[in-house]
Amino acid sequence: MGQPITSGVQGKPQERTVPAGAAAAGMPNPGRLFQIFNAYQQTAAMKAAIELDVFTAIADRHTTAQEIAQHVGAAERGIRILCDYLTVMGFLTKNDSHYGLAPDAALFLDRRSPAYMGSAARFLDAPDMVKAFENLADAVRKGGTTWGEEGSLSFENPIWVEFARSMAPMMMMPAECISRLVEADKGGKCRVLDIAAGHGLFGIDIARHNPQAEIVALDWADVLEVAMENARKSGVDFRYSTLPGSAFEVEFGGGYDLVLLTNFLHHFDVPTCERLLRKVHAALAPGGRAVTLEFVPNDDRVTPPEAATFSMIMLGSTPHGDAYTFAELERMFSNAGFARSEHFRQPPMPESVIISYR
Amino acid sequence: MGQPITSGVQGKPQERTVPAGAAAAGMPNPGRLFQIFNAYQQTAAMKAAIELDVFTAIADRHTTAQEIAQHVGAAERGIRILCDYLTVMGFLTKNDSHYGLAPDAALFLDRRSPAYMGSAARFLDAPDMVKAFENLADAVRKGGTTWGEEGSLSFENPIWVEFARSMAPMMMMPAECISRLVEADKGGKCRVLDIAAGHGLFGIDIARHNPQAEIVALDWADVLEVAMENARKSGVDFRYSTLPGSAFEVEFGGGYDLVLLTNFLHHFDVPTCERLLRKVHAALAPGGRAVTLEFVPNDDRVTPPEAATFSMIMLGSTPHGDAYTFAELERMFSNAGFARSEHFRQPPMPESVIISYR
Repeated sequence: MGQPITSGVQGKPQERTVPAGAAAAGMPNPGRLFQIFNAYQQTAAMKAAIELDVFTAIADRHTTAQEIAQHVGAAERGIRILCDYLTVMGFLTKNDSHYGLAPDAALFLDRRSPAYMGSAARFLDAPDMVKAFENLADAVRKGGTTWGEEGSLSFENPIWVEFARSMAPMMMMPAECISRLVEADKGGKCRVLDIAAGHGLFGIDIARHNPQAEIVALDWADVLEVAMENARKSGVDFRYSTLPGSAFEVEFGGGYDLVLLTNFLHHFDVPTCERLLRKVHAALAPGGRAVTLEFVPNDDRVTPPEAATFSMIMLGSTPHGDAYTFAELERMFSNAGFARSEHFRQPPMPESVIISYR
Repeated sequence: MGQPITSGVQGKPQERTVPAGAAAAGMPNPGRLFQIFNAYQQTAAMKAAIELDVFTAIADRHTTAQEIAQHVGAAERGIRILCDYLTVMGFLTKNDSHYGLAPDAALFLDRRSPAYMGSAARFLDAPDMVKAFENLADAVRKGGTTWGEEGSLSFENPIWVEFARSMAPMMMMPAECISRLVEADKGGKCRVLDIAAGHGLFGIDIARHNPQAEIVALDWADVLEVAMENARKSGVDFRYSTLPGSAFEVEFGGGYDLVLLTNFLHHFDVPTCERLLRKVHAALAPGGRAVTLEFVPNDDRVTPPEAATFSMIMLGSTPHGDAYTFAELERMFSNAGFARSEHFRQPPMPESVIISYR
């Protein structure tokens, strides 16, 4: 709620602030509930701005609603309302009638930025995904997704091709973190198995940092085409091979120094994770490590916010997935035979890295 | 982002916080963008919790996920994930495994509370309304709703019956504010025209405070049935009459002391508002006042947040509606012949009251 402003016209105060009876200062606020009922419009506004490429237009110095509207081929009223809304959300600035990019928008939403993440909307807000939340009460009753039997996990679900195509930018920073944490720059023999490789960025980044690294990428066949294309673009394809299929069924082979489990375990229940981790453990060479990227809430499961709310995505889109605490992950790895696990929070990234030693 | 927590197992720190390279402290945060891409889930979660009546269950001292799940007939996993999510959103508290109601939830979301607002979701998140935001880029291009020609304003659109049925609780506080601002308690002869009366609460509240007040409620005929039923419940129906039809076409009659324009002007463009206001002016008795309830952003149009973001709802659901600043409203009333207007902000309510003198 903004502060009251008193403006005078003809010497008379034209605006007064009147506390709303019993619900005055410090009391509950219906505005917050109103905001939640309309929160879906935040997603809609961001998707529209990305589709219309409003952020890139502003980066190109089209700064008034009229200029932006002309540049992107939209109505001035539509752009003015959209840009005001994005300003309230903190992605734009507004001075007089001129809009500018807030730091988040300049880095992540200007299409020419190397860290551009606008494409992530195509996966995160994919129609099937959003549809899974339309009657969330049913998912709460059932305790799992109402998106078919298996939700996003169904056999060769095309959403993972969309994931591989559109989520790479959002994963650049985590991929760099992992390369640093495993000290890829030190070089040396390094056989890497990248499970559910998707876009392939995690393995590719290690290969870029360590010229001796050899990557085996596992995913559905259609998805691996995207990973291989990215490997070619990064010039590491001659050290990149693929294993098409399900991580639960395909034979991994052995002697890996690193096995990457990025954004994978959260889709499954604990017994399924442990079954997979035993297979991972068996595939590691002596001294080998499993590297997990996950949303890891604290033991209270309600902090930090980004990690804690992730379990909702799993409720909506999977039968049994979850955001696991470090204690839960540590126990899974331990039960699967791993000696110990370490947890690295990566602010400002919402995800953590867990390194588990064979 | 939560603070790093270092937990020790066997004397070794198991969790470390590693700044994520170039994007460390003070730098842009992809977590915020991730949150916006998923913001639609906030609406979905609130709708699910209201549908399952989770808040009432907690008020009834079912406080663990297991107890709540049993009480509302849902899966424990679903309830645990939903309640953790609502805790992050600030509507629940969590201590160990026990959930409690935060003040907002106790007042607005426990079904037995007189200020229960759960029903508001049925209007604010009505399927037609939400659908209007599915391809918001098209509305931005067009500069107005893509929900048919007229959006929510089409002839006898049934959404206004839903509005009348479900939005009354959210309007109780504003209705009390208006009765206080017009000093209804002082009594005396008072003819009131309630334009687009909906649930009728604004006129009814004045009639409850002033036993001499007589209310004429104008709205679509189907909607007026809801208003009349509410008038009967409040025991003021013998001073309550109805004028079915469009505010732009129906003959108002004259000699009104008050004309109520609650949540109405925002649906129309300025010329349409001024045309209506001239008609309102002509219907007022000497000394009469128009009382407007509106979302009124400051001149910058980006503060305060609740008022500033309201124009987005108008972009999505109407051809030409807007959230008008006080200067704009004052000019409309002035152009329609009113002598002066006063602006009352009503924190913590998101809406303002404007009183305009004939």
